[in-house]
Amino acid sequence: GAPRYAELDLERTARRGYPEAVYCAGKTAAQVAGIAAAVRGRPDVITLFTRAQPEHAAAVLAELPDAFHDADAGLLAWPPTPPPPSGGLVVVAAAGTSDLSAAREAELTARYLGRPTELVVDVGVAGLHRILGRLDLLRRARVVVVAAGMDGALPSVVAGLIPAPVIALPTSVGYGAALGGLAPLLTMLNACAPGVAVVNIDNGYGAGHLAAQIAAD
Amino acid sequence: GAPRYAELDLERTARRGYPEAVYCAGKTAAQVAGIAAAVRGRPDVITLFTRAQPEHAAAVLAELPDAFHDADAGLLAWPPTPPPPSGGLVVVAAAGTSDLSAAREAELTARYLGRPTELVVDVGVAGLHRILGRLDLLRRARVVVVAAGMDGALPSVVAGLIPAPVIALPTSVGYGAALGGLAPLLTMLNACAPGVAVVNIDNGYGAGHLAAQIAAD
Amino acid sequence: GAPRYAELDLERTARRGYPEAVYCAGKTAAQVAGIAAAVRGRPDVITLFTRAQPEHAAAVLAELPDAFHDADAGLLAWPPTPPPPSGGLVVVAAAGTSDLSAAREAELTARYLGRPTELVVDVGVAGLHRILGRLDLLRRARVVVVAAGMDGALPSVVAGLIPAPVIALPTSVGYGAALGGLAPLLTMLNACAPGVAVVNIDNGYGAGHLAAQIAAD
Amino acid sequence: GAPRYAELDLERTARRGYPEAVYCAGKTAAQVAGIAAAVRGRPDVITLFTRAQPEHAAAVLAELPDAFHDADAGLLAWPPTPPPPSGGLVVVAAAGTSDLSAAREAELTARYLGRPTELVVDVGVAGLHRILGRLDLLRRARVVVVAAGMDGALPSVVAGLIPAPVIALPTSVGYGAALGGLAPLLTMLNACAPGVAVVNIDNGYGAGHLAAQIAAD
Amino acid sequence: GAPRYAELDLERTARRGYPEAVYCAGKTAAQVAGIAAAVRGRPDVITLFTRAQPEHAAAVLAELPDAFHDADAGLLAWPPTPPPPSGGLVVVAAAGTSDLSAAREAELTARYLGRPTELVVDVGVAGLHRILGRLDLLRRARVVVVAAGMDGALPSVVAGLIPAPVIALPTSVGYGAALGGLAPLLTMLNACAPGVAVVNIDNGYGAGHLAAQIAAD
Amino acid sequence: GAPRYAELDLERTARRGYPEAVYCAGKTAAQVAGIAAAVRGRPDVITLFTRAQPEHAAAVLAELPDAFHDADAGLLAWPPTPPPPSGGLVVVAAAGTSDLSAAREAELTARYLGRPTELVVDVGVAGLHRILGRLDLLRRARVVVVAAGMDGALPSVVAGLIPAPVIALPTSVGYGAALGGLAPLLTMLNACAPGVAVVNIDNGYGAGHLAAQIAAD
Amino acid sequence: GAPRYAELDLERTARRGYPEAVYCAGKTAAQVAGIAAAVRGRPDVITLFTRAQPEHAAAVLAELPDAFHDADAGLLAWPPTPPPPSGGLVVVAAAGTSDLSAAREAELTARYLGRPTELVVDVGVAGLHRILGRLDLLRRARVVVVAAGMDGALPSVVAGLIPAPVIALPTSVGYGAALGGLAPLLTMLNACAPGVAVVNIDNGYGAGHLAAQIAAD
Amino acid sequence: GAPRYAELDLERTARRGYPEAVYCAGKTAAQVAGIAAAVRGRPDVITLFTRAQPEHAAAVLAELPDAFHDADAGLLAWPPTPPPPSGGLVVVAAAGTSDLSAAREAELTARYLGRPTELVVDVGVAGLHRILGRLDLLRRARVVVVAAGMDGALPSVVAGLIPAPVIALPTSVGYGAALGGLAPLLTMLNACAPGVAVVNIDNGYGAGHLAAQIAAD
Ligand SMILES: Nc1ncnc2c1ncn2[C@@H]1O[C@H](COP(=O)(O)O)[C@@H](O)[C@H]1O
Ligand SMILES: Nc1ncnc2c1ncn2[C@@H]1O[C@H](COP(=O)(O)O)[C@@H](O)[C@H]1O
Ligand SMILES: Nc1ncnc2c1ncn2[C@@H]1O[C@H](COP(=O)(O)O)[C@@H](O)[C@H]1O
Ligand SMILES: Nc1ncnc2c1ncn2[C@@H]1O[C@H](COP(=O)(O)O)[C@@H](O)[C@H]1O
Ligand SMILES: [Mg+2]
Ligand SMILES: [Mg+2]
Ligand SMILES: [Mg+2]
Ligand SMILES: [Mg+2]
Ligand SMILES: [Mg+2]
Ligand SMILES: [Mg+2]
Ligand SMILES: [Mg+2]
Ligand SMILES: [Mg+2]
Repeated sequence: GAPRYAELDLERTARRGYPEAVYCAGKTAAQVAGIAAAVRGRPDVITLFTRAQPEHAAAVLAELPDAFHDADAGLLAWPPTPPPPSGGLVVVAAAGTSDLSAAREAELTARYLGRPTELVVDVGVAGLHRILGRLDLLRRARVVVVAAGMDGALPSVVAGLIPAPVIALPTSVGYGAALGGLAPLLTMLNACAPGVAVVNIDNGYGAGHLAAQIAAD
Repeated sequence: GAPRYAELDLERTARRGYPEAVYCAGKTAAQVAGIAAAVRGRPDVITLFTRAQPEHAAAVLAELPDAFHDADAGLLAWPPTPPPPSGGLVVVAAAGTSDLSAAREAELTARYLGRPTELVVDVGVAGLHRILGRLDLLRRARVVVVAAGMDGALPSVVAGLIPAPVIALPTSVGYGAALGGLAPLLTMLNACAPGVAVVNIDNGYGAGHLAAQIAAD
Repeated sequence: GAPRYAELDLERTARRGYPEAVYCAGKTAAQVAGIAAAVRGRPDVITLFTRAQPEHAAAVLAELPDAFHDADAGLLAWPPTPPPPSGGLVVVAAAGTSDLSAAREAELTARYLGRPTELVVDVGVAGLHRILGRLDLLRRARVVVVAAGMDGALPSVVAGLIPAPVIALPTSVGYGAALGGLAPLLTMLNACAPGVAVVNIDNGYGAGHLAAQIAAD
Repeated sequence: GAPRYAELDLERTARRGYPEAVYCAGKTAAQVAGIAAAVRGRPDVITLFTRAQPEHAAAVLAELPDAFHDADAGLLAWPPTPPPPSGGLVVVAAAGTSDLSAAREAELTARYLGRPTELVVDVGVAGLHRILGRLDLLRRARVVVVAAGMDGALPSVVAGLIPAPVIALPTSVGYGAALGGLAPLLTMLNACAPGVAVVNIDNGYGAGHLAAQIAAD
Repeated sequence: GAPRYAELDLERTARRGYPEAVYCAGKTAAQVAGIAAAVRGRPDVITLFTRAQPEHAAAVLAELPDAFHDADAGLLAWPPTPPPPSGGLVVVAAAGTSDLSAAREAELTARYLGRPTELVVDVGVAGLHRILGRLDLLRRARVVVVAAGMDGALPSVVAGLIPAPVIALPTSVGYGAALGGLAPLLTMLNACAPGVAVVNIDNGYGAGHLAAQIAAD
Repeated sequence: GAPRYAELDLERTARRGYPEAVYCAGKTAAQVAGIAAAVRGRPDVITLFTRAQPEHAAAVLAELPDAFHDADAGLLAWPPTPPPPSGGLVVVAAAGTSDLSAAREAELTARYLGRPTELVVDVGVAGLHRILGRLDLLRRARVVVVAAGMDGALPSVVAGLIPAPVIALPTSVGYGAALGGLAPLLTMLNACAPGVAVVNIDNGYGAGHLAAQIAAD
Repeated sequence: GAPRYAELDLERTARRGYPEAVYCAGKTAAQVAGIAAAVRGRPDVITLFTRAQPEHAAAVLAELPDAFHDADAGLLAWPPTPPPPSGGLVVVAAAGTSDLSAAREAELTARYLGRPTELVVDVGVAGLHRILGRLDLLRRARVVVVAAGMDGALPSVVAGLIPAPVIALPTSVGYGAALGGLAPLLTMLNACAPGVAVVNIDNGYGAGHLAAQIAAD
Repeated sequence: GAPRYAELDLERTARRGYPEAVYCAGKTAAQVAGIAAAVRGRPDVITLFTRAQPEHAAAVLAELPDAFHDADAGLLAWPPTPPPPSGGLVVVAAAGTSDLSAAREAELTARYLGRPTELVVDVGVAGLHRILGRLDLLRRARVVVVAAGMDGALPSVVAGLIPAPVIALPTSVGYGAALGGLAPLLTMLNACAPGVAVVNIDNGYGAGHLAAQIAAD
């Protein structure tokens, strides 16, 4: 049964077509363990655990030893096998190496929600030839997630080049006037190319979920 | 030919599948007139004029007398007939009567970019039965645009109820701590239900463009 | 006698009907111990110690070994027994599991100030059926405290459904554009449903105190 | 019948015990007129029109010539007679003469929702003897609304003196670092005396509505 | 002689090599006229009048009828003939038509301080081929001023392509989350390509002055 | 007698030694007229009317025809003759011509509160020789008020040169990142030279009042 | 001799009448030690070391073993004996116990700069009788420093009661919407009682220095 | 070969004339090690590693044992010998000792990009004679970098004294209203002396790179 400090939204897959995810950030390891134990009886839906610190991951793995775990992305999934890919291609692009963990969280979320995915890294606008060299891949996408910190300029450039919608994922990479990610967030909200959908700073889960919905058949 | 103060992105339809739009806000009426004259030779693509004040509209209509004009939405389109609708249904919902002009700009943009659209107004969360009474329509949508000011709570509620992605369109409706639309913008970026894509405050054009891309076949 | 670094407001119960509380956050353990020693001579009024870190709690318990202590809420009370409940019912609702400690601080404060209380957890708007399933309880309340982080949308929804006033308690749960709780704070100040009273971020003590005053006979 | 740009929440009185109010600020005079015409068939509930500019007021009065109108407060009410007062006393205090219109909006709202009210003006903390001279009245109140701009210090002082809850109503009175009312808003959220409920800047309607709920029998 | 409300920095050309400019924005027309009269005796140095509204321009022209005046840029210069161009080439690029007045102010300032200049307009990143088509010109520059509003992404892209330093000139073009130019300002401060020098929002004068200094022999 | 919308703090001179001032900004002309009429019976204390727009000034002058009026500073005083100067010298320095009205308001306030005053204008740090040329005067002051907008750097420089305290008066002169005066306000709060007292943006009245108190015998 | 990473302002006492202070916060212990060694040759002026962490204090005490050290205030002074008190009385008042370290830093600074001082603690506006009970002391002061966090309301109240100027010292005491001290800072800048001089958050050194200057003979 | 998480911009020297730098802040030590290994095959270009924590530095030195390392500046360079100096002189001035690490990062970057450099420290405006004593050096510079925290006033003063452009480098030195460096950043953007180029807070690398470009022959 469900623990008394959580009321899992078990109707979500029926209602929305996508399962609930457990946000670990504000929870104790004991609470996460309790939730992991509660979902063990439901191998028919995939449960994601997001923003998992090592102690959260250990708590999940103690209850669900075969769960998939990506430590960089802070993500666990159980059962561990993603569904067979269907729908359109989700391409995830990261402006710099430092944006990789948010980009990876987005890619894994889209994959566990059933989409085929591709990832390209370190293709920021400081060296424009890098993203221009991937135009073929970008043009095959049903939707592109673009993760960037600092100036957050890459989504504007990508959106101006392709027909597919772009999900702009601002990251907290940067310092000073980057304001913990507010600077790229504002850049993206003001993208001069239309077709840019913005999510919260470092919200790879949200970007991947939205991508999966857009790329659904 | 193109005027020297503007370099129209005439390749955009070829490159992206959607035509350029002319942002009137920072331009003189004379500049807008010059651009309107320049597009007269291209009836094969639809040109949108957005954020048109009365003097901008008059300048466009002087050059393109049969242009479509919606004064509430600040939008003109030429040629005036939208393409035959194709792709999935775009539903636009406005939380209050005061959000109507942004919502209408979104609806018209999606329609002129080729999608079928529906509009529902004054269905904010202060009286929850109103949005719950439209669930059938919302569930038929390929994508839903939700315009809201003040607390900006409606997109979270809608996203939690349906499988389609939600485009959250914050408006500058409100006062004081609404901060000219920053409050609903922040609400939407922090939506507790995944599947919410955020655009700039009062950016009905961007919301409609994104909706058209998502709902494309 | 009172220590020289503190001047306890011993007249407060006479003047206001509610006792003083000791805010531990900026005090040394030694200062808190000195205050605890000073109140030992006044078992006639209940003293609350709020925002107590483990070292503060240890200092209080060393002086007042039978004090009540809830570590999650960071709260101690002495004498340990709350007054017999009087006045109307205070219901405290938390949007997510992560909002539990603020919600619990509010509930305990209201109870130690003499009110009957109920707590419901994890009933956020992402799964609307959860709060709608508690309407009976909510309608029995004289006042409802609603704790929420992220989008902070739950108070607007609750206020729109019931006659009682709602105390909106924003929490620092969330990341990025949640701005440490400023996002839900702004949402609540802009609630589109009237009847929402806002307190400071994570201020469970203030929410519970206000609830006790509103629900007084 | 209801106009198509508005969906009046006619169930609100049944659901909440208080009628809907029409927020005029973002509406055209024609829209407000349409709504006024629609409520004419419902003399059984009092409808408030808030934030009415002169053109809004004229539109309402053209449809409902006997409506009550207070131009300073920007408020209209129809039918024009408030209900017989019941419940506890609502006292409204304004720190300065410049806070009068927000304070008056609060007082009128509470009165039209059925409560007895009193108003005191220009009793800010720069001359403390003024508010101290009204302690008798303040102590008779079931709830006190305190309107203040600039430093917003008055609610803290009042809350520290009386048992009743205080509704703090920040106003946009001030300049420079008053930040359009954000400075007193922050002051009030951080009140060092517990028992302070904060509403949006200049939100006299919200303060009065909340006061009426708190002071209900 | 100098009027008593102004103390012209007549030593500036000797000290810095560039003459003083008169900032008209906060001055009355009478004050500007007095200053214009005072400089009439100094035809040996060029005086610029910046941010001149029509009434300021009229006041200057009444005293100095042959002064150069560009109304779009809000700039006057007397004596009216710029010095013969020396030093390296200053290229000014504007992302959109709406950025033209700030860009023009920068270009004219650099020219009146003695540099050869070129201006290109409407070459924003939404249509990347436009700026890429000007690479030859950009590579010939000793310094490039790039004016942009909204996302402010163009300076990052330009800086990544050329050896010369880039002066990023944010403009107040945009709405909502553009925050009156703060969004492009932040973008530019966080440019992922090094070699970007930022000036204040809409500060075409400052950008042009800095460009003239950098491009000096 | 006092009008019912205002409660003049007539005890202030007895309590504090300085008379009340009437802040006109948020008041109607009729309210200001009523207050002017009320003070006519008290020629024994000087009443200041601050932030007076032309309609406020006309209202005061209708009641008190011989009142002193400085339109630039937005200030009126009645009776019109300042007290004979006593106490130390108050020097007011303005960084630019555009800061003159705030500086003048400060100087007049200090003079009407009884101090000898001197004013120097247009001595900002861009031409450092100007302020260095006034060191003799500055060193004779008991307190110096320094008004500056934009970078707000002048108070730091002055404070580092003299023994007297400096009152830093930030002005709203500037644009873009000057943020309506917040930039110089922050500069002044962070002055690297100790001995700087900061007041609100454009608050010439407050600066002058404080100067009068500091320079009192 | 002076170390090469620091250029002590040895002329300051001659120029300003008050000695330099060493700001330890951004310096290594080795740098602070080097400066301490350099001042050992100057026992004729008192050197203050502010914001000293334990490692800074140890470094100073290793070079100057008889230095005065107050760990709570983070302050050291050498030579250790303050000058004989002269000038007017400086009273320092702290709103809460948690404001004590900033208040103590102010008091010690004023004392080491030569003034007589008094300190009162925990006299915030939540219990107004506490500050009213000290009016006699406050009225004897030449200047009063008032330290407060949270709502920052105490300086307005004190300034309204006495003739002396008030130095408002905002502290970072509080949480959430206290914004690290910005909330009380804004309150103080907007004080409705004139005569309030504001310094930076937690800047006890600056407050004490300013107080010493104001209270100088 | 290049690791798959990074795509080094090896064309940068050819395209821009300056080599790529590796931003270590968001990277794991393993990633930095992989990049260091990849550049070992390219001794023909100098690679800089910026913002290197001790673990990053160890990782680089394990791969490139003879790399230059300055721990205060967080910078490594390989090959370790800077190019022979060419172009104009770059002078770097730091307002306080605490600004030294940012100033040093700027100086080293300019030197490794090929320029002659000089550094002066602790010459802030609180003791103006210090910077005035270096005017000869400042006047010999082709460009001056000025690092300052707190009030950020030094760049305005320097720019007003010399013909060369000034690069203003705000630092995060300060507390409270310094806002982590936002206060000096704003000061610099609003410099009242023209000729000031601003970079991000603590961005010594960016300041040094820009200086090298400006001072290039
Ligand atoms: N990383 C994430 N960011 C934002 N929302 C999330 C994240 N992970 C899960 N969620 C959502 O947050 C809700 C879970 O919150 P809780 O009830 O506190 O576990 C779920 O409805 C998820 O869809
Ligand atoms: N002045 C006001 N401030 C905040 N909310 C208001 C105000 N006046 C009316 N409302 C609420 O806003 C809603 C009306 O919005 P609308 O549908 O746009 O007329 C109603 O539900 C009212 O309860
Ligand atoms: N706690 C403090 N806050 C602000 N300024 C200070 C403080 N302590 C010292 N100062 C000033 O900062 C300067 C010292 O900075 P520095 O040269 O970095 O040691 C001196 O001129 C002091 O007057
Ligand atoms: N300290 C720094 N601050 C800002 N940008 C930097 C810094 N160091 C390197 N960069 C730039 O950031 C890019 C490297 O980012 P990355 O691909 O994540 O290594 C390079 O193009 C550098 O020019
Ligand atoms: Mg890279
Ligand atoms: Mg409505
Ligand atoms: Mg949950
Ligand atoms: Mg008054
Ligand atoms: Mg364009
Ligand atoms: Mg000047
Ligand atoms: Mg206390
Ligand atoms: Mg120093």
